[in-house]
Amino acid sequence: MIAPMTSPFRVLAFAGSLRKKSYNRALLRTAISLAPSSLAFETADFSDVPVYNGDVEAEGFPAPVQALRERVAAADGLFIVTPEYNCSIPGAFKNTIDWISRPPSQPFDGKPASIIGASIGDGGTMRSQVHWRQVAVNLNLHLLNRPEIFVRRAQDKFDADGNLTDEALRTAVVKHMEALAAWIAIFKK
Amino acid sequence: MIAPMTSPFRVLAFAGSLRKKSYNRALLRTAISLAPSSLAFETADFSDVPVYNGDVEAEGFPAPVQALRERVAAADGLFIVTPEYNCSIPGAFKNTIDWISRPPSQPFDGKPASIIGASIGDGGTMRSQVHWRQVAVNLNLHLLNRPEIFVRRAQDKFDADGNLTDEALRTAVVKHMEALAAWIAIFKK
Amino acid sequence: MIAPMTSPFRVLAFAGSLRKKSYNRALLRTAISLAPSSLAFETADFSDVPVYNGDVEAEGFPAPVQALRERVAAADGLFIVTPEYNCSIPGAFKNTIDWISRPPSQPFDGKPASIIGASIGDGGTMRSQVHWRQVAVNLNLHLLNRPEIFVRRAQDKFDADGNLTDEALRTAVVKHMEALAAWIAIFKK
Amino acid sequence: MIAPMTSPFRVLAFAGSLRKKSYNRALLRTAISLAPSSLAFETADFSDVPVYNGDVEAEGFPAPVQALRERVAAADGLFIVTPEYNCSIPGAFKNTIDWISRPPSQPFDGKPASIIGASIGDGGTMRSQVHWRQVAVNLNLHLLNRPEIFVRRAQDKFDADGNLTDEALRTAVVKHMEALAAWIAIFKK
Repeated sequence: MIAPMTSPFRVLAFAGSLRKKSYNRALLRTAISLAPSSLAFETADFSDVPVYNGDVEAEGFPAPVQALRERVAAADGLFIVTPEYNCSIPGAFKNTIDWISRPPSQPFDGKPASIIGASIGDGGTMRSQVHWRQVAVNLNLHLLNRPEIFVRRAQDKFDADGNLTDEALRTAVVKHMEALAAWIAIFKK
Repeated sequence: MIAPMTSPFRVLAFAGSLRKKSYNRALLRTAISLAPSSLAFETADFSDVPVYNGDVEAEGFPAPVQALRERVAAADGLFIVTPEYNCSIPGAFKNTIDWISRPPSQPFDGKPASIIGASIGDGGTMRSQVHWRQVAVNLNLHLLNRPEIFVRRAQDKFDADGNLTDEALRTAVVKHMEALAAWIAIFKK
Repeated sequence: MIAPMTSPFRVLAFAGSLRKKSYNRALLRTAISLAPSSLAFETADFSDVPVYNGDVEAEGFPAPVQALRERVAAADGLFIVTPEYNCSIPGAFKNTIDWISRPPSQPFDGKPASIIGASIGDGGTMRSQVHWRQVAVNLNLHLLNRPEIFVRRAQDKFDADGNLTDEALRTAVVKHMEALAAWIAIFKK
Repeated sequence: MIAPMTSPFRVLAFAGSLRKKSYNRALLRTAISLAPSSLAFETADFSDVPVYNGDVEAEGFPAPVQALRERVAAADGLFIVTPEYNCSIPGAFKNTIDWISRPPSQPFDGKPASIIGASIGDGGTMRSQVHWRQVAVNLNLHLLNRPEIFVRRAQDKFDADGNLTDEALRTAVVKHMEALAAWIAIFKK
């Protein structure tokens, strides 16, 4: 007898940096490659999202914003890979979140999600993730608590092609992605 | 005998919203009008600042960014009027700060500053200011502790022309600006 | 036909103040009285919990700590009513949480919970709740996102006997408690 | 010619752990030993401070609290060495701060101060220090921004007698203490 087939959960993944060789983009790619098959990923890009301005918004959402709003709304869950700039969320990334969160609809409302991040220094994006968790409350995202991943000294953990070569970290990422899959299942069953 | 004349302190003021009828822009105008004569204000605008991208930065700072970097570096102090978006700093505003903070120079380093903000709801930008204070540590801004100003229900406190009509709040703003002047004097004497 | 009977969820409720006439204790009593019948409350007391000291802990948990650890472990969920002291969690309350969280067992691990609070001033415990949410991540508590309740100017909202007389706030508390019941059900079904 | 003699600044130092072999107590001792001669340290102890209770306070401050209030008021500056419990300030330590901060007097008001901390894990008390900085705003402590010190994996950096053996960290502590001395001088000149 064959087990009933179930569709994987659709997860929209954001890397919070636009730089092509960003460690966070590399981390996102690795994490997706290590995720269980119950998760099907798409990646979001915000290179075309303009700086938020309420007067611009009054004329309608710009096309790249509208597209992201629809993709978030359609997702079963979110996966966020965030840099840290000035002890907080990168403004460029937060700008995108602000656009997506605008009324009338609430695309983030009630979605399960998780967050990880990489930095050059010793903090590993800890303070950015602290701020992200506060933002998530307002978005009504349900953020996975653990395992937390703070990739410190990213330059020592990826090779020149952006491959994650640190074995302990690869194992941690595998566990995080399994936990994310289990977390989404709680809200989607 | 005439007292020796001293130059006022140069304060660069930022309103964290681009919307023309923003309460925070109105609050900034009011605060400047109520400030002591020992402070001379200029206002910064970030409407032309693009979304941060490290690959763009590698080709040199965009002109509006470079201009802001120089204006911050030339100031004796900063005055920040911040909205709150999603329980944090508006991404568009933070994006500007991120650009200005990039090496090699550190335009914010060691400047005295203060922060206030206005919101439609009951929080009065409290959570945005909490995040701002964390960012300020990294910028090595010296932020005034008190009096804190959290303008809640801004729609009840300004008239249609953006004039602050709430007398208790006007008094609080006067005290804040006097405290800012005294605070800058500590670092510039 | 009679519907199958189900047991209510057991919720352990903490008021973060030891003062007998505390507004937060009054708020806790009100909230319990307004909660749906699917929640059965017990209240925790920490008046006998000593100041944490690792050398004392090495000799075994004090009896009041051990009792609280067992009560937390036995609960289906937690309900936290927190004051704010110095823009953060009251030390006395946090001291109790620190004791309960000590290894080897993890009594809080995976419990659904919610948090509200009351203050005399305008902040309504907003900054205490911000810190609580960070602590909750470490405890692996699953904290309800919304509706948030920040009771500001508590002295205007309770009568001399500690009854909550503000109708809008009573309605908000009813909605919060319904949301808590639904939230616990997600994790306990 | 002999330079005019000036008294050193009186700094009251707090270690936020009561455990005798605490890394934070060891870090405090090291930091004092590496500080410039312009700083004269006393250390505060809170082993006799009871759990805060407003009803107890109504009968007068307990003697250990009163003694600490007077010592804080008499200091030119403060030096805080904080552990991190549950991603925040240890409750036992915060409890002491809450007692000292109670009206009518404000012992902390306007004092310059700095903060460092040590932990067993990778965070190095980063999240505790984030919360501390928020508390400091309410106390009107003026906290030094940098250099920040987050001692991670303390067990690898101290020997069995509590001596700090990590040379890079010793150098960082020297710089921090020099910066603290310069910071106090700004407010006391």
